[in-house]
Amino acid sequence: MDSDDLNTVHHRVVDEQAIIDTAIRYTWALDENDWARLDDVFVPDATARLGDDVTLEGRDSIVGKCSGALSPLAASQHLVGNHHVVVDGDTATHRCYLQAQHVGTKDAGGGLWMVGGRYEDRMVRTDDGWRIQHRDLTVMWTEGDRSLVIPK
Amino acid sequence: MDSDDLNTVHHRVVDEQAIIDTAIRYTWALDENDWARLDDVFVPDATARLGDDVTLEGRDSIVGKCSGALSPLAASQHLVGNHHVVVDGDTATHRCYLQAQHVGTKDAGGGLWMVGGRYEDRMVRTDDGWRIQHRDLTVMWTEGDRSLVIPK
Amino acid sequence: MDSDDLNTVHHRVVDEQAIIDTAIRYTWALDENDWARLDDVFVPDATARLGDDVTLEGRDSIVGKCSGALSPLAASQHLVGNHHVVVDGDTATHRCYLQAQHVGTKDAGGGLWMVGGRYEDRMVRTDDGWRIQHRDLTVMWTEGDRSLVIPK
Repeated sequence: MDSDDLNTVHHRVVDEQAIIDTAIRYTWALDENDWARLDDVFVPDATARLGDDVTLEGRDSIVGKCSGALSPLAASQHLVGNHHVVVDGDTATHRCYLQAQHVGTKDAGGGLWMVGGRYEDRMVRTDDGWRIQHRDLTVMWTEGDRSLVIPK
Repeated sequence: MDSDDLNTVHHRVVDEQAIIDTAIRYTWALDENDWARLDDVFVPDATARLGDDVTLEGRDSIVGKCSGALSPLAASQHLVGNHHVVVDGDTATHRCYLQAQHVGTKDAGGGLWMVGGRYEDRMVRTDDGWRIQHRDLTVMWTEGDRSLVIPK
Repeated sequence: MDSDDLNTVHHRVVDEQAIIDTAIRYTWALDENDWARLDDVFVPDATARLGDDVTLEGRDSIVGKCSGALSPLAASQHLVGNHHVVVDGDTATHRCYLQAQHVGTKDAGGGLWMVGGRYEDRMVRTDDGWRIQHRDLTVMWTEGDRSLVIPK
């Protein structure tokens, strides 16, 4: 590999890592209920379909859905892996696997609700780094007590 | 770190990432039942032991085993992580952890079959990138309904 | 990105990857019961809180705790992911998610004990690479047969 080729590869590796970091930042924000940090994950007019037929329009709507489901829990863990990134200039696609564990409070019986699936994202390069423009969650299986994530 | 050292490290990081990407490409191919894409994962004369005493000889044989087990399912997810890569010129070893979830169709009762284990690979650098020469799957535990992956 | 900026980013990426590799080396050492390899993970005076109120003082104490819990098992798998690294000169913080599966021997009933949680680490750059100075394990949920990891 000559020096020019290596530079090209390095730029690609840096972009791919930055995109994966954005996907990971999403999980820590959700699991720490730190909703303001999602400003560094989604562009303001982002859209998302999070496991049902509803298309959420705008970052505030996405945050509302996530906080409604996760805030009542004792804890949650959105484990992601198998990241696959394709960069095309200032846009990119990213997908990864997800195992999202939801832990109920003692008052709610302390049960567990697991969602296995995949995220598929369209990403865009902004002045502040890579952000999600659209996210699709496809649920592959679930286990446990679904009532933990249904708003009362 | 001087410039030569940094270049050496960069080459290593690029190789390691390419090897991990090959291991991840395997999982998406399996879980999307896209068997042709395994041409970009294994060399044609690759061998594999996938959790039993049988050594599969040749890529076609490996594909046959995977498609026989996974095609009948509603979905599968081969979540991998903890990648460990050692590059030695144009060959390498790679190992990683695996949690493979198998989701039955509604007709099959909709159950789950989980296999936890590790992959240990011998990889080779080809003109088209890094490929698996030999793969060993060691099963560490299983849970659920094994009948989901037994050909009828 | 100009050449100087790219070099800075590359140094950061190399550091981050080395830190993640240290966290992964820990998991393979534990799951292979290869306690000597923890010399390449922790500094000698490292401290750790591994899911309870006890602060383990020194690497030997950490090794003793891990080997006491894991040696009696048939197998274990410490799957980690969602790594988040912040480097500040020669120190760094690292955190990641954990799903630790513990597999009992047939004599112990062959059951499973799962611990889900997160590691939060303070790391330090040494002449031999990045090492853990302090590790905190926060348990988020557990499932299965806890008796598998209680010394008899």
